[in-house]
Amino acid sequence: MNKEYELIDQLFDELFPITRSITGEGVRKTISILKKYIPLEMFSVKTGTKVFDWEIPKEWVIREAWIKDEEGNEIVNMKNHNLHVLNYSIPVNKKMSLEELKPFIHTIPHLPEAIPYVTSYYKERWGFCMSYNQFKSLKQGIYHVFIDSELKNGELNYAHAILPGKSDKEILISTYICHPSMANNELSGPLVAAFLYNRLKKWKERNFTYRFVFVPETIGSIAYLHRFGEHLRKHVYSGFVLTCLGGKNYPLSFKRSRNKNAPINKIVDYLMSTGEMDIVVRPFTPINGSDERQYCSPGFNLPIGQFARMVYGQYDGYHNSLDTKEVMTIEKIVDSIDEIERILKIQEWNGYYVNVNPFGEVKLDKHGLYPDMNTPLNRDASTNFKRDQRKQLNVILTLLNYSDGEHSLLDIAEISGYCFHDFVDVIQLLKRKGLLEGPYYEKRSLSV
Amino acid sequence: MNKEYELIDQLFDELFPITRSITGEGVRKTISILKKYIPLEMFSVKTGTKVFDWEIPKEWVIREAWIKDEEGNEIVNMKNHNLHVLNYSIPVNKKMSLEELKPFIHTIPHLPEAIPYVTSYYKERWGFCMSYNQFKSLKQGIYHVFIDSELKNGELNYAHAILPGKSDKEILISTYICHPSMANNELSGPLVAAFLYNRLKKWKERNFTYRFVFVPETIGSIAYLHRFGEHLRKHVYSGFVLTCLGGKNYPLSFKRSRNKNAPINKIVDYLMSTGEMDIVVRPFTPINGSDERQYCSPGFNLPIGQFARMVYGQYDGYHNSLDTKEVMTIEKIVDSIDEIERILKIQEWNGYYVNVNPFGEVKLDKHGLYPDMNTPLNRDASTNFKRDQRKQLNVILTLLNYSDGEHSLLDIAEISGYCFHDFVDVIQLLKRKGLLEGPYYEKRSLSV
Amino acid sequence: MNKEYELIDQLFDELFPITRSITGEGVRKTISILKKYIPLEMFSVKTGTKVFDWEIPKEWVIREAWIKDEEGNEIVNMKNHNLHVLNYSIPVNKKMSLEELKPFIHTIPHLPEAIPYVTSYYKERWGFCMSYNQFKSLKQGIYHVFIDSELKNGELNYAHAILPGKSDKEILISTYICHPSMANNELSGPLVAAFLYNRLKKWKERNFTYRFVFVPETIGSIAYLHRFGEHLRKHVYSGFVLTCLGGKNYPLSFKRSRNKNAPINKIVDYLMSTGEMDIVVRPFTPINGSDERQYCSPGFNLPIGQFARMVYGQYDGYHNSLDTKEVMTIEKIVDSIDEIERILKIQEWNGYYVNVNPFGEVKLDKHGLYPDMNTPLNRDASTNFKRDQRKQLNVILTLLNYSDGEHSLLDIAEISGYCFHDFVDVIQLLKRKGLLEGPYYEKRSLSV
Repeated sequence: MNKEYELIDQLFDELFPITRSITGEGVRKTISILKKYIPLEMFSVKTGTKVFDWEIPKEWVIREAWIKDEEGNEIVNMKNHNLHVLNYSIPVNKKMSLEELKPFIHTIPHLPEAIPYVTSYYKERWGFCMSYNQFKSLKQGIYHVFIDSELKNGELNYAHAILPGKSDKEILISTYICHPSMANNELSGPLVAAFLYNRLKKWKERNFTYRFVFVPETIGSIAYLHRFGEHLRKHVYSGFVLTCLGGKNYPLSFKRSRNKNAPINKIVDYLMSTGEMDIVVRPFTPINGSDERQYCSPGFNLPIGQFARMVYGQYDGYHNSLDTKEVMTIEKIVDSIDEIERILKIQEWNGYYVNVNPFGEVKLDKHGLYPDMNTPLNRDASTNFKRDQRKQLNVILTLLNYSDGEHSLLDIAEISGYCFHDFVDVIQLLKRKGLLEGPYYEKRSLSV
Repeated sequence: MNKEYELIDQLFDELFPITRSITGEGVRKTISILKKYIPLEMFSVKTGTKVFDWEIPKEWVIREAWIKDEEGNEIVNMKNHNLHVLNYSIPVNKKMSLEELKPFIHTIPHLPEAIPYVTSYYKERWGFCMSYNQFKSLKQGIYHVFIDSELKNGELNYAHAILPGKSDKEILISTYICHPSMANNELSGPLVAAFLYNRLKKWKERNFTYRFVFVPETIGSIAYLHRFGEHLRKHVYSGFVLTCLGGKNYPLSFKRSRNKNAPINKIVDYLMSTGEMDIVVRPFTPINGSDERQYCSPGFNLPIGQFARMVYGQYDGYHNSLDTKEVMTIEKIVDSIDEIERILKIQEWNGYYVNVNPFGEVKLDKHGLYPDMNTPLNRDASTNFKRDQRKQLNVILTLLNYSDGEHSLLDIAEISGYCFHDFVDVIQLLKRKGLLEGPYYEKRSLSV
Repeated sequence: MNKEYELIDQLFDELFPITRSITGEGVRKTISILKKYIPLEMFSVKTGTKVFDWEIPKEWVIREAWIKDEEGNEIVNMKNHNLHVLNYSIPVNKKMSLEELKPFIHTIPHLPEAIPYVTSYYKERWGFCMSYNQFKSLKQGIYHVFIDSELKNGELNYAHAILPGKSDKEILISTYICHPSMANNELSGPLVAAFLYNRLKKWKERNFTYRFVFVPETIGSIAYLHRFGEHLRKHVYSGFVLTCLGGKNYPLSFKRSRNKNAPINKIVDYLMSTGEMDIVVRPFTPINGSDERQYCSPGFNLPIGQFARMVYGQYDGYHNSLDTKEVMTIEKIVDSIDEIERILKIQEWNGYYVNVNPFGEVKLDKHGLYPDMNTPLNRDASTNFKRDQRKQLNVILTLLNYSDGEHSLLDIAEISGYCFHDFVDVIQLLKRKGLLEGPYYEKRSLSV
């Protein structure tokens, strides 16, 4: 249990109890807690603002919500679990019979212990959620339902933090902050994003600029695109949405970008097909998912995928009170951070390289990279000093031959069968010796 | 047996007895009968006219043709079957021994009941055709052969009818009218063409203009291309030749266009590979076939395929008297019309569509296309009122996401796995709601 | 045993004994002997000249090299086998104990009969090579080692011969002349090159110009590229390096060009995949091989492959005294010449053809290429006189239809399933009749 693990665990406990929704105090409080870990800048958009085909809704204020029976016993109270109140509920204060009340109570009969997560953002309603077991135990009688809430003109909030790199080409990493107390969906996303930020901050150098975005799902990313879409279209090289990144015994899972040529698609396909990482690939679909549906809408078509692990809709706790820290686990959050950091490093290396001496072979012995005698007995030597089945030498010859500005490092790995990892040391060695330039992130011709 | 069936049957009986050839009265009579069913315009080209590497031949007039034995008994007479006379025969009036006669008599030894169909368009000859059984029964003696025919300067005739649509992009549908009394090859072609015309005429709207062409095979399509080739090269979007479209127990069969990107190739490949239609695909070849050999000659390379059923050269009756209405069947003519009409409808739908609101998702609940509450229990609802495993909603999301002007409807069907049919209702729904434009038949960028 | 076989055998015997290295008298003597068979022009480059990342080394003069024991008995003498002296050895004249001597003696313990071939071009060393068996039998005592050699300012030599054709597009055929007495590697290469030259010289016509290059390996091809690289980049259409072309029971083996679109790649792939030739294909790699590593360096990327048979590094005799004429065999040299000549002929035919009458089909009967009567009984006749299952006719129809300037003959063979050979006679026939033009070696549109 290292320092990072402890910090993640602590952040989880701070964020979990907050009653988030797509607008309101919950989002702002979440952002302000996150600021202790990542230097977020917060933005707001006023209620009623048109954002493409959508409009910023009223801000939801929720103060109290309970049902009592005739004797004044509390049946449910959102103080005990914030899922008990239908998210975006309008106020109510009424006494009614059980039969009158039933249509306003939401349950999951096939998961009788679970309190469902129910929302009604765009149609005014009130309602309560409870476990099916509790619902079945309700007795005839008169119930007092009370919700002290408000839908008022206010604002929608989102935030971002930008970690600069050598180039203004950007990697967009987006996650969402609008669900109340659920762990895998949604806290896993902000946890991974915040601590990934801190990993990348420690890198000695970054070729790309990294943009971390925290938005209420759907309406938040649409509002973000409304404000930053043009910039993103010009600068985003790659990226992904983070969602549902916990879950014991689940491998990392990647939803491909709609844009088939997205660099992130190629990297993950390579890692999966070579077995270099235990990762599952899902096709792109606009039918379900998270904010990649917005980033990959046809007008933007950003080269954005999505990482998950225990995927939305595919586990019992999805959108109900069974989605807990025990199911998510902090260990798996750390695994997700590790794996995604590794993918981001590969993405940094995966550019186009240029052999500085492209005419004929480089005279490698001049640089101590070739044996100075040729005998049948040194056929397994890379240099006078390196008897490694000629591995280093072969990787150097391969890299120099294909470093023509038109083959990406992934292309070279695929052509040659060497794994990505084999090239990294050799790239650094050749760059130190002035024999190689790159990575560049666009093809270039050898100057002839 | 509906009205259409009866009309096809009646047209068959009118056309069957005519002694057609590549020129002459037979072609003109055929066109004039067809005019009762389809408003054909007839064209003529004078004997001797150069058409590309060819020349319009003399017009064939045939009045009488018979062989009599010494006693004056008729051995054969073209009044009984017009295949008895070699097509394009020059006149003859001679008495000769059986041995002298034999070289002028054509039979099919391996089909001893069949009278062969023999032509000699471009070399002057006379001759008779009979069954091999009859040939074997001929006795020694003197025979009187008599053919009253003429090869005179005249004209070659063809005809077309044009059914206009919203666009001047054309669908070329070509068939041939030069074979005497044979049913599958050739009457099935003109029958399907004439009644397909009447089906398309009844459509509420046509995006394309449909050009129906009736020509003598080979020389007729070459003459047609000589006159209309430039126009066709500019306007033809798709099309096909119709030939051999009858035959019990045979599925529809498509010969691919030489032009690999021909829309008709893609549609039929899709129908075949998904199993949405029982259809067989043949590769393009210039070695045999019908007028697609001319339309797909390298100088024109029109995106034209060919539909058949019981394919030329692959059934006993091919080019002989066994090719009858019983073998062809009117039922199969109707089946061919049904299937080709369906393919033409798919071709109309199969354009590029444009999502009017391409930035972020469309706010579907505004349009009654999304449930207004989100609970674990309505995950199978497309709208508040449609509990269909979310099928309509998923099709809408798929269609809107890929309606970027760069994916054809077939592309979208292939990407998504939905069948073509699933999209048709949804397209109409979205167009009514002003959310979708198209189909267009060329790619277009989203205006950004 | 024909004349050519005898000449090859005689040339082998002349060239084998010469003590070649990358510079010096051996190379010049080799070129002067080759001149009796191929009109080579010799070039020289001065010691110290910079050629890309390399520099022309000093010229090696070797006069005498031996080891004697205390009694004056010769242990080894390069007069007996020129592999006994380390290639590029500096002079030495010394008496030393066996223990002192051992580090200067090279052997191959796992091939105890073989004298290894050892070089030290770019680091000054002296040394001897002997069999491991002899090495083990050396007794304690004082040995006299004597090498009378010199590294002097001089020149590097290479040579070429150019066989002109109709076009100035060139086929580059390169082989190397720097190894002392070894047969498969290297004499097989110069032998095949010299006699291939004489085969091509006898062709009635050559569409391409053929450039035969003889260079010391690596440094020689780099020097050649330094002088002729720009010309090659502009003119080379195809080509290959010749190496290791003997070896009983080995099929011809092709190393693909780095340039995936190289015509030679396509031809060999076709021959292999159709089984028209028994040939093995190796992928391109910059890791090992011969001068194709230079011609395919990224700055040049010439469309050059490599032909071999018993491939370098894959047989016992590689780089040692077991590489003899008996292992190579003159028969296999003749086989290699036969096969490569056949490939070069295919390459000449494999251009783009143009149908002179591309609009509609050609009227083949006008040209005696079609039967003048059409009956069910002549369906297997190509013409009135050719009953060949219509093969000639079908090949003609196929060729004319695809001779649109955009399909190479290989493309047509692949589309149609006819083998390359089927087309050759028909091309000549159609050209004689003025119906076909070509081959061209670049795509062209039909003039419309």
